[in-house]
Amino acid sequence: MGLLVEIVCVGNELLIGKTLNTNAHWMARRSTTLGAIVSRITVVGDDVDEIASVIRESLKRKPRFLITTGGLGPTFDDKTLESIAKALNRELEINAKALEMIEEKYEAYAKARRVEKFELTPHRVKMAKLPKGAEPLLNPVGTAPGVKVEIKNTLLIVLPGVPSEMEAIFEESVAPLLKREAGNVVFFEVSIYADDIMESTLAPLIDKTMHDNPFVYIKSHPKGEERKPHMEIHFSTTAGNSKVARERIGKAIVQLSEFVQKSGGKVKVQDKK
Amino acid sequence: MGLLVEIVCVGNELLIGKTLNTNAHWMARRSTTLGAIVSRITVVGDDVDEIASVIRESLKRKPRFLITTGGLGPTFDDKTLESIAKALNRELEINAKALEMIEEKYEAYAKARRVEKFELTPHRVKMAKLPKGAEPLLNPVGTAPGVKVEIKNTLLIVLPGVPSEMEAIFEESVAPLLKREAGNVVFFEVSIYADDIMESTLAPLIDKTMHDNPFVYIKSHPKGEERKPHMEIHFSTTAGNSKVARERIGKAIVQLSEFVQKSGGKVKVQDKK
Repeated sequence: MGLLVEIVCVGNELLIGKTLNTNAHWMARRSTTLGAIVSRITVVGDDVDEIASVIRESLKRKPRFLITTGGLGPTFDDKTLESIAKALNRELEINAKALEMIEEKYEAYAKARRVEKFELTPHRVKMAKLPKGAEPLLNPVGTAPGVKVEIKNTLLIVLPGVPSEMEAIFEESVAPLLKREAGNVVFFEVSIYADDIMESTLAPLIDKTMHDNPFVYIKSHPKGEERKPHMEIHFSTTAGNSKVARERIGKAIVQLSEFVQKSGGKVKVQDKK
Repeated sequence: MGLLVEIVCVGNELLIGKTLNTNAHWMARRSTTLGAIVSRITVVGDDVDEIASVIRESLKRKPRFLITTGGLGPTFDDKTLESIAKALNRELEINAKALEMIEEKYEAYAKARRVEKFELTPHRVKMAKLPKGAEPLLNPVGTAPGVKVEIKNTLLIVLPGVPSEMEAIFEESVAPLLKREAGNVVFFEVSIYADDIMESTLAPLIDKTMHDNPFVYIKSHPKGEERKPHMEIHFSTTAGNSKVARERIGKAIVQLSEFVQKSGGKVKVQDKK
């Protein structure tokens, strides 16, 4: 099965198509590179019942990691922690460590802006209200801490939606956990490019190559059109070490390239610019 | 409740973070602009059981439209139609109209590439195998037709993953359906920008403004950092006509701008370039 990761992105801005979901892309990439398998990405709006449902449904599928992004800030529509508390049937409570992190941030902001102090208003304290039993994760570049909750089968990781903050907490607190659990597993991939062969002509050749190379996943991505075909062919594998991964992919590339050439296609190692 | 739309994107390339999900962004934008409310986006890999589960779960939530993208082509990993047949407990069968569309495409390709003909191989015929009762949607720019399936509460629309093909079928066959069901409903939005006010200071001002303008949704998007705050403030509303929408948003902008200025922030109508 591998080390399964689910990603949940929270925010109306994603559902109205205001914001392109680069966070999901970044997290999927990093998790895959670290040896994990991302099994699902769900995007949901700023609604407590909706978020809680999505969290509950994901936990039922028992991924090893469930990583959320968005909805951790000081505004009314930052509802992720409240929703998680609801999904887990736990109380929200002020976490002393989280509150301390937030206090330190506002002291630093006051210093930087040369004012005496920023009060810990209810909107600021809100960012320290975590589901009971949760643990804050240091936010190296912003205010709201990330959150970690250990649940029976799943490690639930809650990150902010601002990309720089999400990425910083991920690198500092999440990547090491993923790496440790993934062990030596590596994900390896190579693309080659083919001209003058239609995807429908390529399809049975990919079938044959995958049959002979059962651990290599091969996927064609049409970049032109059937009429004037230009194809990216993407080879990937997950293996116990890098040498095995490279050998597998190399063998599959050689075999498929020969098939393509026999069918009148041209193979290139680099895409035309 | 409004006209609910769910989007399902199929493809391993999205889960490994190879491809940025611009399709979801585009469809969410277009659906919103046409007056619909996108309630959820789910991304799932090229796996029949997984896709079938996602379809079944979505149908239980009874969105008016369920739109999928990806997995319609001629290769082994194009599994969306098989998965939908499984989710709906319907047979897959060759649809005569779909087969005719595909035949015409390959005749045109043969002409363009000056060969006598392209055989209708099993991989090509596969694109015409639709769940029983489904209807093909003309693909103006590629080979695989889109698919429409009417289910009790939901119109299930199945589109290819190649962006140009997805967009062309959406505009030709889906947008008119959404528009008709949305009626005169319009989505309207405006962003303003604020400097020198922290998101946590802005939060209670947004609360007050939203309380006084119950049909306007206001969301702050931090673009700087709390230390040197630069904020996009996004106002949106869905209304029965454009005049009402504009008036609502205008009133809310005036009120919040005054609050921001009283708190020492600077408001700009355009973002700094």
